[in-house]
Amino acid sequence: MTRRSYPVAHLPRLIHTDPGENDVDNSNTPPATKLTDAERVDWLRLIRSDNVGPRTFRSLMNHFGSAKAALARLPELARRGGAARGGRICSEDDAGAELAASTRLGVSLVAPDEAGYPPRLATLDDAPPLLGVRGAMETLMRPMIAIVGSRNASGAGLKFAGQLAHGLSEAGFVIASGLARGIDQAAHRFSIDGGTVAVLAGGHDRIYPPEHEDLLAQILASGAAISEMPLGHAPRARDFPRRNRLISGAALGVVVVEAAHRSGSLITARIAAEQGREVFAVPGSPLDPRAAGTNDLIKQGATLITEAADVIDAVQPIMERPIELREPDGNDRFNDRFKDPWDLDPDTGERARIVALLGPAPVSLDDLVRMAAASPATVRVVLLELELAGRLERHGGGMVSLI
Amino acid sequence: MTRRSYPVAHLPRLIHTDPGENDVDNSNTPPATKLTDAERVDWLRLIRSDNVGPRTFRSLMNHFGSAKAALARLPELARRGGAARGGRICSEDDAGAELAASTRLGVSLVAPDEAGYPPRLATLDDAPPLLGVRGAMETLMRPMIAIVGSRNASGAGLKFAGQLAHGLSEAGFVIASGLARGIDQAAHRFSIDGGTVAVLAGGHDRIYPPEHEDLLAQILASGAAISEMPLGHAPRARDFPRRNRLISGAALGVVVVEAAHRSGSLITARIAAEQGREVFAVPGSPLDPRAAGTNDLIKQGATLITEAADVIDAVQPIMERPIELREPDGNDRFNDRFKDPWDLDPDTGERARIVALLGPAPVSLDDLVRMAAASPATVRVVLLELELAGRLERHGGGMVSLI
Repeated sequence: MTRRSYPVAHLPRLIHTDPGENDVDNSNTPPATKLTDAERVDWLRLIRSDNVGPRTFRSLMNHFGSAKAALARLPELARRGGAARGGRICSEDDAGAELAASTRLGVSLVAPDEAGYPPRLATLDDAPPLLGVRGAMETLMRPMIAIVGSRNASGAGLKFAGQLAHGLSEAGFVIASGLARGIDQAAHRFSIDGGTVAVLAGGHDRIYPPEHEDLLAQILASGAAISEMPLGHAPRARDFPRRNRLISGAALGVVVVEAAHRSGSLITARIAAEQGREVFAVPGSPLDPRAAGTNDLIKQGATLITEAADVIDAVQPIMERPIELREPDGNDRFNDRFKDPWDLDPDTGERARIVALLGPAPVSLDDLVRMAAASPATVRVVLLELELAGRLERHGGGMVSLI
Repeated sequence: MTRRSYPVAHLPRLIHTDPGENDVDNSNTPPATKLTDAERVDWLRLIRSDNVGPRTFRSLMNHFGSAKAALARLPELARRGGAARGGRICSEDDAGAELAASTRLGVSLVAPDEAGYPPRLATLDDAPPLLGVRGAMETLMRPMIAIVGSRNASGAGLKFAGQLAHGLSEAGFVIASGLARGIDQAAHRFSIDGGTVAVLAGGHDRIYPPEHEDLLAQILASGAAISEMPLGHAPRARDFPRRNRLISGAALGVVVVEAAHRSGSLITARIAAEQGREVFAVPGSPLDPRAAGTNDLIKQGATLITEAADVIDAVQPIMERPIELREPDGNDRFNDRFKDPWDLDPDTGERARIVALLGPAPVSLDDLVRMAAASPATVRVVLLELELAGRLERHGGGMVSLI
């Protein structure tokens, strides 16, 4: 398997690093700062611009070589992709203001492989290019277990979540959760001394639920909070599943304590499995609807656990291996072949052919290249254009679909 | 795999059958009676004699070719095995009296492959040579699921056991259980209409617990009760594990509903796994000690179930296959080689050599033959002698140990 340290491997000119640092460090030594101040502003502008999510960010970086170069090309690409007018581009002033406000709140915006960026989170295809990190940063570099579950948990569920969090914390694990009511709250509360991480769905200044401000203050003393959202962003319903990928992505595994059918915790479990994380579930009576989701998870292959030792036994072998990075997806594979692609302007016929092949069902880049009889570079550019025009969705494994 | 229809394959002269009937019948057509009245008396005398259990019975049948011939040799063999005086041999009168009393109570004593003998039970190495069967015999020929669990079950456990039994019963399965208080009682009660089977640890006239006489009467209307014990035998503690092998052995699989650590139901689950039966367990909260055993079973590989459909999905593929008989064990493998072994009288030196090799740890017949440098027939005879003297225990897979 190719080891990849996103996005450093693709930016040797811009990021101040030496080759040895590209190896992910499993020890607790904090990695050095890697972005310059100016780069950090460019990165922030790019990720805060319209229609640029983590995957598009990476695609643009791989394509144009720097955030600065990508920013310069955004309006033109969006127009070619069919946007009536280009999406809003985050200004240097706005990015500077966000950085300043973050600093005032004690939030650092860190890039993958920088100190405070959870090492396992950095391995995700859709890892946030900049993560807002607040509190005791070293907590984020330690092995983490996520504990999630129902907001309206039973007394037994809350008690068990607390026992488990305490047991794992005593064993040296950091507990990650979502700061919600119920199981999340119990998991944080019983692991505060050992360090716990609240993963937020909104900005660092928009804590949800508001009554957990006090809990967060306690967490930050020896733990941390992380968010990929800008300050001022109040979390909406759709932000929670997006946030959940960070909870599982940062952890070795996810324990689902209590979950009804079709609950948010099950989405976290599904994402965790897709990310290659261990999924653990706490069993319950078939007559208890709050255990329906966890029992289902076990039926589907999750590991049944009844105590902290069960979790530790399962993650121990994973911890002993170096962190495995994923195969580069389709986007990256085309990159090496084209060293100077940004002057490429597909002709109208090619662009129409590629767009016609796209639909709501995800299709792979490989298939598009083959079916459109176009060069990989051309397909890539057309997809970027569509993306920036808000017409394309990127999925895992190099799959794309039209919105 | 060799298909074997115990013990018919070894008794072609004595049992009135044609070769086609040796195939186990997966349909509901009741097999014909196969033992003559005289043979049934001999079989009953042999299995009711001291130191003759199901494995010894089979060993004797394989060795001497008939129960009658075995009975004639018992005293001599036991004496040679070191018994001060031979064990009690069941007289023809006693056997006749038991048969008559059984008939009066509506109990038939049936041999493997006869009508009323559960087809899957007949495949066990230690299948009872004669099974006391009472009630609606055809129930015993249908596919069975065993449901077992705690005597002091929770309300939820009892409710779930009832729901599950009802659901499986509606789907056409016969429910087997042990007529105990708690889970067993609920399982029987909610499957009475569809047919349920009480597997007894004592004789048919010694119902335990006594207050379940009424429940048994209801069961017998459209279901059945089975026992391998003689009439008048009041069940002792050690009879229950022995009985449990019949519960699991007759069934496609065993569902454990609620079980604490180290409970009897876990013994049934272990035996079921050894018998190659499916083991299902109902999950429960880690904080509920009555679920500790079932959660452990799931950790060890039992299938978590929360509804009847889970069980049905798992056993459907097994039902579609013909019933697979086990490999003959060590006892049988030696049989074909010796056509006239009963005049064999090992000399004192050989006997001493074989006995010296035996101890409390089980050893295989193969190893004994090799280490004693004796013929398989000689080893077999010595073991039979020891067995009848009450000095030998037979385990599965042709293993033996000294008591």
